[in-house]
Amino acid sequence: MQVVETISEMRNLRPQLTEPVGFVPTMGYFHEGHLSLVRQAKKENPSVVVSIFVNPTQFGPSEDFRDYPRDLRRDLELLQNVDIAFVPSEEEMYPSGFNSWIDVERITQRLEGASRPGHFRGVTTICAKLFNIIQPTRAYFGQKDVQQAVVIKKMVSDLNMNLEIIVVPTVRESDGLAMSSRNIYLDAEERQAAIVLFKALSLARHLWQSGEKDTDKIRHQMTSLIQKEPLARIDYVSIADANTLEELNVIDRPALASLAVTIGKTRLIDNIILKGGK
Amino acid sequence: MQVVETISEMRNLRPQLTEPVGFVPTMGYFHEGHLSLVRQAKKENPSVVVSIFVNPTQFGPSEDFRDYPRDLRRDLELLQNVDIAFVPSEEEMYPSGFNSWIDVERITQRLEGASRPGHFRGVTTICAKLFNIIQPTRAYFGQKDVQQAVVIKKMVSDLNMNLEIIVVPTVRESDGLAMSSRNIYLDAEERQAAIVLFKALSLARHLWQSGEKDTDKIRHQMTSLIQKEPLARIDYVSIADANTLEELNVIDRPALASLAVTIGKTRLIDNIILKGGK
Repeated sequence: MQVVETISEMRNLRPQLTEPVGFVPTMGYFHEGHLSLVRQAKKENPSVVVSIFVNPTQFGPSEDFRDYPRDLRRDLELLQNVDIAFVPSEEEMYPSGFNSWIDVERITQRLEGASRPGHFRGVTTICAKLFNIIQPTRAYFGQKDVQQAVVIKKMVSDLNMNLEIIVVPTVRESDGLAMSSRNIYLDAEERQAAIVLFKALSLARHLWQSGEKDTDKIRHQMTSLIQKEPLARIDYVSIADANTLEELNVIDRPALASLAVTIGKTRLIDNIILKGGK
Repeated sequence: MQVVETISEMRNLRPQLTEPVGFVPTMGYFHEGHLSLVRQAKKENPSVVVSIFVNPTQFGPSEDFRDYPRDLRRDLELLQNVDIAFVPSEEEMYPSGFNSWIDVERITQRLEGASRPGHFRGVTTICAKLFNIIQPTRAYFGQKDVQQAVVIKKMVSDLNMNLEIIVVPTVRESDGLAMSSRNIYLDAEERQAAIVLFKALSLARHLWQSGEKDTDKIRHQMTSLIQKEPLARIDYVSIADANTLEELNVIDRPALASLAVTIGKTRLIDNIILKGGK
């Protein structure tokens, strides 16, 4: 594996990669979720590039950019079987005077976008830059950050970018907690409380499978369950159209059940898709 | 030459073009200015693609999108020696639900951007789409739309797009009027009056060559000259840094003298660069 720090070196190496090229953009501090993205990329492409870059422009001014966990040495050890680890500096990606941004409108106003203004502008801009630098055939995103995946797909489609976006299922701990680099922030008691996100999603699935289609009733029961957990504070609980992310009154199409809950000081998100025969 | 109307057909044909590929994005209704871009692209690349698309998103609500001159048959006859003419429909480029935009900040707020809010957002977005569809090695823009060229260069640099932007000198009528598709709007008297743009720029060059560096004095003399023309109404007269487009007090670096003047009902722009030994 080659560790590449500059855009010009990445451009020089790119023609040597065997096509098709899989790409996994990350902010590092790897857990099984990241590694499952890398494994799927390896399975589907002879060459794989992984980027590790904690992107400052997707964090709000009061968010955890400075404290976001980093462990580059460990990350690189976990990546031994990919072709290139692209680990640019902040100055390399955002030189002085940087002033160009990509906005995907409408679907970025809901859910995470409503709670984190400017977040998706940072996400789409850095992904477009990385796509242009690495020129992958396919890029891999996790289902856990479902809105990110939907927004990136919309950008790729609207701007006619030349790659395919692949969404990989969420990897969970044995008790159901979705893997996230931010889980490191949780103390033992909070870690226990954090299960409430998956419990609420499981309740939604159970109600839907039992024939409940009224989203008010499902949201209400999810909310009640979370409110019983004293360490949890709800940001949002949503049952939305899985494609447009618009809230649904009735589940009459593939739906996304998603939520953001702060446990102690740590904001966590999770989601499941409600669709198919059941 | 192949005339291509869809993105998918363009993508299918692209691999057959010999590299490097030159690209000339246009809104059609060709004059010598367009043809000089095509000639330069032909000279520098074995393959050339020209797009003809009157881009609705770069026109303001009160601007001339509907009336903008079009003559596709004549345009295609003038293009016989290029490889592909890409002539997509509005629906092909902006399908229902289109919602992604590229903003280059700061330099788009001045000059044309100040007079035409949203104009450059439309320009950068359509150019990014066309670059992604056509994947050129080089794209050619006219010096007459100098701010457009500066903004596109900034987008390409900030977003790490894989192409080179080439700026080609303005082509002028024998009396100095810059060629523009909008010159067709001028009646005989207005056509005569329109020379005042080039006269004002020539005056700026003369003053600067004579040693005048105070931009207030140069702008004042340009303004006085234009005001003597009864059919002319000034939108702006600018002496700015040629790279940042920020107004200069003193010409102590390469400068852009530019102006927008409405003649009758037709808004015209023109510019010259003041730099070098003289």
